Amino acid sequence: MQTWDAIRARRNVRHYRPDPVSDDDLERIVEAAWRAPSAANNQHWDFVVVTDRAQLEQLSTVWPGAGHIATAPSAIALVVPESGDERETMIDQFDLGQAMMAMTIAATDLGIGTGHSAVGDQDKARDILGVPDDHRVCYLLGVGYPAGRKLQPIRKPDRRPFTEVLHRGRW
Amino acid sequence: MQTWDAIRARRNVRHYRPDPVSDDDLERIVEAAWRAPSAANNQHWDFVVVTDRAQLEQLSTVWPGAGHIATAPSAIALVVPESGDERETMIDQFDLGQAMMAMTIAATDLGIGTGHSAVGDQDKARDILGVPDDHRVCYLLGVGYPAGRKLQPIRKPDRRPFTEVLHRGRW
Repeated sequence: MQTWDAIRARRNVRHYRPDPVSDDDLERIVEAAWRAPSAANNQHWDFVVVTDRAQLEQLSTVWPGAGHIATAPSAIALVVPESGDERETMIDQFDLGQAMMAMTIAATDLGIGTGHSAVGDQDKARDILGVPDDHRVCYLLGVGYPAGRKLQPIRKPDRRPFTEVLHRGRW
Repeated sequence: MQTWDAIRARRNVRHYRPDPVSDDDLERIVEAAWRAPSAANNQHWDFVVVTDRAQLEQLSTVWPGAGHIATAPSAIALVVPESGDERETMIDQFDLGQAMMAMTIAATDLGIGTGHSAVGDQDKARDILGVPDDHRVCYLLGVGYPAGRKLQPIRKPDRRPFTEVLHRGRW
């Protein structure tokens, strides 16, 4: 898919067809994140790809907004080292946002939908994924082919008016 | 450009040809950010596009890592409302990361390089851009055609081994 089409076609997908996403495609989606930039190239991230039904169902309970993971054919967990430093934590969040966006655009390019979720119950999430205690499972990304309409460029996304968000020269 | 090529060709560009980036292209880059997802669709972001030489030179002094903005033909400032809430601030950072990545991929698609910078001196940055005191200039993005090699897919980016970052099923 052309880049500008993929950027405009990306949307949050939380209802999936049952078809599995191939290992190659899941790997490519994570590769997009792996290639993302990070502060001082620190790469404070690890990615756990989950395709096991029981694990996905368990993961869907770590946050009220994670319900869609139960019926996703796959999910990717974004993990960072715990940090006691507030500034570092903020930078890690920014970098995770960059990695997440790279994954969602790479998935869209493959016709694959994505829907992300926060994580509330850290102990449970770590336990399900075998993540060490000194790391944090920050986000989950459901990954699967959309049950509904295909991914196509969206003409009018639900956003603030563009002219309000874009300032030229000065605020 | 094909999406997967743009994702692999994106790199930090801090040396630019003097040629201006067209208004249409700058607008498209900001549109990519405008389309990015955000928590609860809050869209805690505004974007200031700067092409004035004097303003760019001033902006290059707001952080030690902003020097490249002085010679960029254009820059985009990412602005968020100040928040007293730590959780909201973290989520805003994640969302800004998503918006930033969308912009850098959209720029790459157009053959345009980008290089981002943090902002240290908030009062100065706000003053240069006319941003109100209850908002924060979080990041600057230099935007211009690369002075060096063109943007082409990078075979071996400088990253941790992919097999270390990618976990299958469990950590």
